[in-house]
Amino acid sequence: MDKKVSLAVIKRLPRYYRFLGDLLDNGIKRISSKELSEKMDVTASQIRQDLNNFGCFGQQGYGYNVELLFEEIKEILGLNKTYNLVILGAGKIGQALLNYSKFEKRGFNFIGIFDTNPNIIGTKIRDLDVKDIKELEKFTKENNVDIAILAVPGTNAYDLYKDVVSYGIKGIWNFSNTELKKEEGVIVENVHLTDSLMTLAYKFNSNNFIEE
Amino acid sequence: MDKKVSLAVIKRLPRYYRFLGDLLDNGIKRISSKELSEKMDVTASQIRQDLNNFGCFGQQGYGYNVELLFEEIKEILGLNKTYNLVILGAGKIGQALLNYSKFEKRGFNFIGIFDTNPNIIGTKIRDLDVKDIKELEKFTKENNVDIAILAVPGTNAYDLYKDVVSYGIKGIWNFSNTELKKEEGVIVENVHLTDSLMTLAYKFNSNNFIEE
Repeated sequence: MDKKVSLAVIKRLPRYYRFLGDLLDNGIKRISSKELSEKMDVTASQIRQDLNNFGCFGQQGYGYNVELLFEEIKEILGLNKTYNLVILGAGKIGQALLNYSKFEKRGFNFIGIFDTNPNIIGTKIRDLDVKDIKELEKFTKENNVDIAILAVPGTNAYDLYKDVVSYGIKGIWNFSNTELKKEEGVIVENVHLTDSLMTLAYKFNSNNFIEE
Repeated sequence: MDKKVSLAVIKRLPRYYRFLGDLLDNGIKRISSKELSEKMDVTASQIRQDLNNFGCFGQQGYGYNVELLFEEIKEILGLNKTYNLVILGAGKIGQALLNYSKFEKRGFNFIGIFDTNPNIIGTKIRDLDVKDIKELEKFTKENNVDIAILAVPGTNAYDLYKDVVSYGIKGIWNFSNTELKKEEGVIVENVHLTDSLMTLAYKFNSNNFIEE
């Protein structure tokens, strides 16, 4: 593909994927672009443009074949593979993520959880023993770790990030509310919960915004 | 203001606010747009354009006065006020949010946490007693609740959302991974963790995207 896809488009794909999954669960086999647009509260032309980036076309007068489109987006998102994840930080956020069954359904498998607190190390959360973070390097060598979840406080996050990258882990899901400097070949996806709450505060106080 | 601001701009404001806060904490009083741009990995012209939407101007040859800009963005985001929040769902996510001290620093105060599980109702989390969700209507009448956090599984979220809106709560921070139909006068901010993880999977597999 010559033209790169904007990140805004990519960030909309998971939502299409979720909607199509719900339609499938409800036994709906095809849907017009107009219906899909109404359900998703996005213009039909936006949907068409987004999907055209990946060569997913609806048929004129037929609309979209739900299962086909679901499978195509699944492949585009890389969800036809599975991923091994480790959670770094066995606090509330780490535990919440480990207990979130939706991730496994999508092919994201938790294979380890690590902490620094001696009171937590050795305890069992779900079906995993909490390991000492000092064992992470060895663990990474012995297991194929795709993604590390940084669920530690911001003050510890940067050093841990550097370690994780040096161990060769290529995907970082960052809950630490710290900005992590980009490293060549490493993908960082940030979840800034305070940013989301601040955006809510803005909208709460002002109607000076347009949805897009 | 005549021209409405795009949501993409608004979603960048919290990040500016965080960066400026860090600069202030480090005793930095002014910064050139070039330096700010390098630190934030955003073009200087993007920063200028974003801030111009709200009439925040840097001075030619001086750059930005960090404290002034910080205070302006704080006011734009509505963070010069405080907000009362209730958490609906005292599971791991609800507990993690309640323990997140950063929110209070920004003026978001947790005044109640509710659940349906009789084993959890009556227990104490941090300094709050978990209340029966049946008490939420009464609680909302007696207290000024600005924002309800939906930290319940998707299957229960929609009915709860309808209830919450009928009680007059105007802000919803939605962790349920369910789409909530827009209601007049109600602001919904969604945190879709699976979407974020799927975006990470995409980037992990493909370099066909441009950051923006």
